[in-house]
Amino acid sequence: MTRILGIDPGSQRTGVGIIDVDAAGKVVHVHHLPLVLLGADDFPQRMKLLVVGLTALVEEYRPDEVAIEKVFMARNPDSALKLGQARGAAISAVVMRDLPVSEYAATEIKLAVVGRGGAEKQQVQHMVGLMLNLKTKLQADAADALAVAITHAHVRATALRLGVNARQAWSRK
Amino acid sequence: MTRILGIDPGSQRTGVGIIDVDAAGKVVHVHHLPLVLLGADDFPQRMKLLVVGLTALVEEYRPDEVAIEKVFMARNPDSALKLGQARGAAISAVVMRDLPVSEYAATEIKLAVVGRGGAEKQQVQHMVGLMLNLKTKLQADAADALAVAITHAHVRATALRLGVNARQAWSRK
Repeated sequence: MTRILGIDPGSQRTGVGIIDVDAAGKVVHVHHLPLVLLGADDFPQRMKLLVVGLTALVEEYRPDEVAIEKVFMARNPDSALKLGQARGAAISAVVMRDLPVSEYAATEIKLAVVGRGGAEKQQVQHMVGLMLNLKTKLQADAADALAVAITHAHVRATALRLGVNARQAWSRK
Repeated sequence: MTRILGIDPGSQRTGVGIIDVDAAGKVVHVHHLPLVLLGADDFPQRMKLLVVGLTALVEEYRPDEVAIEKVFMARNPDSALKLGQARGAAISAVVMRDLPVSEYAATEIKLAVVGRGGAEKQQVQHMVGLMLNLKTKLQADAADALAVAITHAHVRATALRLGVNARQAWSRK
């Protein structure tokens, strides 16, 4: 059993989702929440809330691997900068714990969860709830974090079957 | 005497500059270097190099305060994202050590170092060398890091004279 931490970074709210995956690729929900960063006084304090929050989750749930959405192109420079800062802080927190980090593009996540690279965000969130057998509606950022974790779980299971590492599995697709 | 760490974040090279400032605002050069991040295998490893490098410098030189350039608007979404990630990682590294972080806009830095908010980058680098009495030409990222450290030193000295904190000193300008 491998525990995967999925992160959907954002400067106001960073989604966190944790799942377990077995060798066959079967996924089980463990935990999810949005880390709400808006309470901080200034931007550096917000990054601290993010790093402290993620570090606490890593210590409590002890994930083996981390998955995070890869951003190819953001809408505008201002939102790209804010998103980048949150992403840099989140990645720092987990690499400092020596956790391996895999990055997946939005189209890869949609393909893994819905089966179509062009799926709507709402479809992804709906499918995440179904796949993890959750009864209540997911908060959007937490759902995205679970989605990237599920993507990594599937890629990982495929890689295990093929006897290659996860990155090679994707490049063969 | 207060020790200030200035950081000029970048995803390929992050400039670091350390100076001491006395109550009168006199600055003395302590150390500078560009942390070169290009050797890392992938982006998460690059962020790790940045956090590990900054943490080592903080442990060795024990700065009291940190200054970093504030970015209002980057050129394009792609560079904004990369810059943001480096900035988020750098800020994480220092806030986790409970160091106070002050942010200064490029125009504030040019005003503090050259005396004109519209000064050229080369003029800033030249003035940094003169102010710190350095004999050799500075690497560009390290020079920018020293420039933001000098800015904070001056703002801090002004604030001490006025009996206010540094942020208030700037808003009175």
